[in-house]
Amino acid sequence: EDVKKQQAVKSSDPYSSDPERHPVLHINNLKPFNAEPPPEILSDSYITPSAFFFKRNHLPVPKVDPASYQLHVEGLPGGVLTLSLEDLKTKFSKHTVTATLQCAGNRRSEMNKVKQVKGLNWGIAAISNATWSGAKLRDVLLAAGYGPDVAQWACHVQFEGLDKDVTGTTYGASIPLKKAVSEEGDVLLAYEMNGEELPADHGFPVRVVVPGTVGARNVKWLGKIIVSAEESSSHWQQNDYKGFSPGTDWDTVDFKSAPAIQELPIQSAVTTPADGAVVDRSAEEVTVKGYAWSGGGREVVRVDVSLDGGKTWQVAQLRTSDKGQAPEPSPPPGQAWAWKLWEVTAPLPAEAQELEIVCKAVDNSYNMQPDTVPPIWNLRGVLSNAWHRVKVKIREDENEE
Amino acid sequence: EDVKKQQAVKSSDPYSSDPERHPVLHINNLKPFNAEPPPEILSDSYITPSAFFFKRNHLPVPKVDPASYQLHVEGLPGGVLTLSLEDLKTKFSKHTVTATLQCAGNRRSEMNKVKQVKGLNWGIAAISNATWSGAKLRDVLLAAGYGPDVAQWACHVQFEGLDKDVTGTTYGASIPLKKAVSEEGDVLLAYEMNGEELPADHGFPVRVVVPGTVGARNVKWLGKIIVSAEESSSHWQQNDYKGFSPGTDWDTVDFKSAPAIQELPIQSAVTTPADGAVVDRSAEEVTVKGYAWSGGGREVVRVDVSLDGGKTWQVAQLRTSDKGQAPEPSPPPGQAWAWKLWEVTAPLPAEAQELEIVCKAVDNSYNMQPDTVPPIWNLRGVLSNAWHRVKVKIREDENEE
Ligand SMILES: [Mo]
Ligand SMILES: [Mo]
Repeated sequence: EDVKKQQAVKSSDPYSSDPERHPVLHINNLKPFNAEPPPEILSDSYITPSAFFFKRNHLPVPKVDPASYQLHVEGLPGGVLTLSLEDLKTKFSKHTVTATLQCAGNRRSEMNKVKQVKGLNWGIAAISNATWSGAKLRDVLLAAGYGPDVAQWACHVQFEGLDKDVTGTTYGASIPLKKAVSEEGDVLLAYEMNGEELPADHGFPVRVVVPGTVGARNVKWLGKIIVSAEESSSHWQQNDYKGFSPGTDWDTVDFKSAPAIQELPIQSAVTTPADGAVVDRSAEEVTVKGYAWSGGGREVVRVDVSLDGGKTWQVAQLRTSDKGQAPEPSPPPGQAWAWKLWEVTAPLPAEAQELEIVCKAVDNSYNMQPDTVPPIWNLRGVLSNAWHRVKVKIREDENEE
Repeated sequence: EDVKKQQAVKSSDPYSSDPERHPVLHINNLKPFNAEPPPEILSDSYITPSAFFFKRNHLPVPKVDPASYQLHVEGLPGGVLTLSLEDLKTKFSKHTVTATLQCAGNRRSEMNKVKQVKGLNWGIAAISNATWSGAKLRDVLLAAGYGPDVAQWACHVQFEGLDKDVTGTTYGASIPLKKAVSEEGDVLLAYEMNGEELPADHGFPVRVVVPGTVGARNVKWLGKIIVSAEESSSHWQQNDYKGFSPGTDWDTVDFKSAPAIQELPIQSAVTTPADGAVVDRSAEEVTVKGYAWSGGGREVVRVDVSLDGGKTWQVAQLRTSDKGQAPEPSPPPGQAWAWKLWEVTAPLPAEAQELEIVCKAVDNSYNMQPDTVPPIWNLRGVLSNAWHRVKVKIREDENEE
C-alpha cells in the first residue's frame, strides 16, 4: 500500500525528484514526505539507521549540487561570508555529536483521540537518534566576524533552507544566539549522518543540528544563516510550533502570546509490546522496551514502568549504547543530547487478564511527564508527552492439566 | 501558641542564640527552626519581605562576628585564599539578582496525605522571592586561581556552612562547577537580602545564592568553598535531597542510584483563596492568586487555572513586579531566576455549589506539572509539584427575593 503511494509520485510535480524511501516506513503524508518507522525498530538499535530515521519534510526535497553548493552567513560586521561545502569540511574542525531529534508533533495521534487537532497524525516514532558530524556553528560564526559586541544587539540566529514552496518561500526557523555561540551548545552544520554523507531526506549536503531542540529548528538543505535581533519571520517560527492552553481554540488563539518551541520537555514511550499485542500465559514474563529523552541537554535519570495502569511502578534499566557495547561515558551536565533506551522484564501478574503498560520518565531537573492527555491538549497537537499507555492481552493456555 | 514555642527556647541549648522571628510564621519545627509564611502573604508582594521569607535551618544559627569573619577558598592552584567580609565587599564588584528559593520539601504535606513520608510537613509556602546582592562566585574563583585548566579535573564546587551539629559536623552541599563559573549562572556570595545585610536566619554575614537551584545548595553562614573532583560528601548531598520512584521504600532505597537534586522542576500553587474558604454567591466572581516558578532559569510562560477540578481551563495573568510598578524586563534565555505571580478573576459558575480550583504552570521548555501526587510520591517527600488543588464553598444568599 505504502509502496504504491510512493510509486504514484509523478515526474510532473515538484516532488518528482524526491528520493526513494525504505518501504517499511509508515507514511503520514506523501507530499511533502512525512514518515516514521515501526516503533520496535527504534529500540532495536541505539543509533537509528538513517533509512529508518523519521522523515519530516515541509516542502519538496531540493536537488542540491554539492560542487556548486554555497552557504551564506549574514548579519555580522564582516559582511556576508560565503562558504562552499569544501570550505566547511576543510576550514573548520570536524565535530561529531550523538543527538536525538524529535518532531514537535510526535505522539500527536494521542491528542487526536481526545479532540481533533490540526497536523499530521504522528504515532510514537517521530523521534530518532543519530550521530552527526560537521563544523560547529560557533566556529563558523566566529570566522564570519562574530564577537562579544554582536551579543549587544543580536539575540537570534536564523536559518533558511533551500527547500521552497511554489511562491519561492523557503523553509525557515531560528534559535537563540546564546545556544548558537555557546561552546557547550554543540550546534553543528552537519554534512554527515551516521558516518556517511547526509541522505537527501535529511538535508544533503548540509543541515543544522541543534541538540536538545525541537526538530523544526534543525533546518535541512541549509542555504543561509542570518545573525539578527529578531527571530525568524517564517510561518513555522511565528504561527506554528507553539504550545497553548487546552482552552485555546482557533477562534481565540493569539500566536504572539506563546514562545516558539525550542527545548522540548521530558518524553518517553513504550516501543514494544505494541498496543493490542497478545502474550501467552506460558511465557510467564513480559519484556517491555522503549525510549526516553529530554530536551535542553537534560539527562534522563529514571524511567518508571507500570503494568497495572499506573497503580504500582518499577524502575527500568537504562542504556546508552547497543547491547554488548560499552556504554557511552556520562555527558557533562547540560549536554545529554541523546536518548536512553530502557527495558523491564517482569513476571506476568497471576490475576491479570490484561496488562495496561505505562511508562514515565524523569530528567535530571526532576521534570516528570504529565499523567494524562486532555490537560495538555492543544490545537496544533504539539508537545504530546503524557504517560504512554499500551494495552496487552494475556492469553491463557488452552491445555491446562 | 507559636510565640510560646519560641519563648520556650532555653539559653542552655545550642539554639539559645537563634534570632527572634515574626510571629505570623507557621512553625514546622522549632529546633532547628523551620517555618513558612501564610500563603496569601506570598502573593501580596512580588519581593517577599525578609521577615516572611520561609526559613529552613538544618542546625542552630551560628553567631558570626562580621569583623573577624573569614571565607576560605580551597582546591585551586594558588593555594588557599582567605577573604574577610570587607574583602568580599570591596575587592569584587557588587551584583544584584532577584531569585526565588524553594525548599525541596515544599508542598510535602500533600505527599503525606497519600502515604507517610520522612520530613518536615511543609505546606505550599516553603518558597519565597528576594533580591540578593554580593560578589559573583565566578569572580571570587577567578581571583583564587581558577582557570580553564582547572575544568580538566574539577567538576564540583563544595560549600561548608559555619553551622555545626554537636559533633562539630558542618552543613555542606555542592553544585556543578559549570554553574559556579558560568557568566550566566549568576551564583552570588550574597551579603545583602532585599537591600539590607543578611538576616541571621538567612546566613549572616554571607550565604551562597544559586539561582534556579534547590534551596539546600544555597549554603548559609558560608565558611568554606572547595573546588573539587567530587560532590560534597555531606549527608545532605549524598543521602538526602534526591528523588526516587514511588515504588522505592526505605528497605530498597539506594541513594547512590539517584542524582542529587540541583535544578528544580516546574511548580505553581494557589495562595488565595485558601482550601476550605467560603465565597458568597452575591460576590458573583472569584479572584484566584498564586505563584509559579521553574528551576534552571527556565521562564514560566503560562499558568492554566481551572475552577472545575481540571475539566476546563483558563489562562492566568502573569506579573513580574508589584502592581503599579513597571514589570521587570524579560530576562535573557536561561536566566529567569524569579517567580511570576499570577491572578485570574472569573464569574462564579451558576450551577456550582463548590469550586475545585486547580492550577498548573508551563515553562519555556514546555515542561508541565504532573496531574496527581501518588505517581510522584517518594519516600523523602521532595519534588512535590503536582497540580495544586483547593476546594472552595459557595454560600448561597439567604434572603433571596
Ligand atoms: Mo516537526
Ligand atoms: Mo530544603
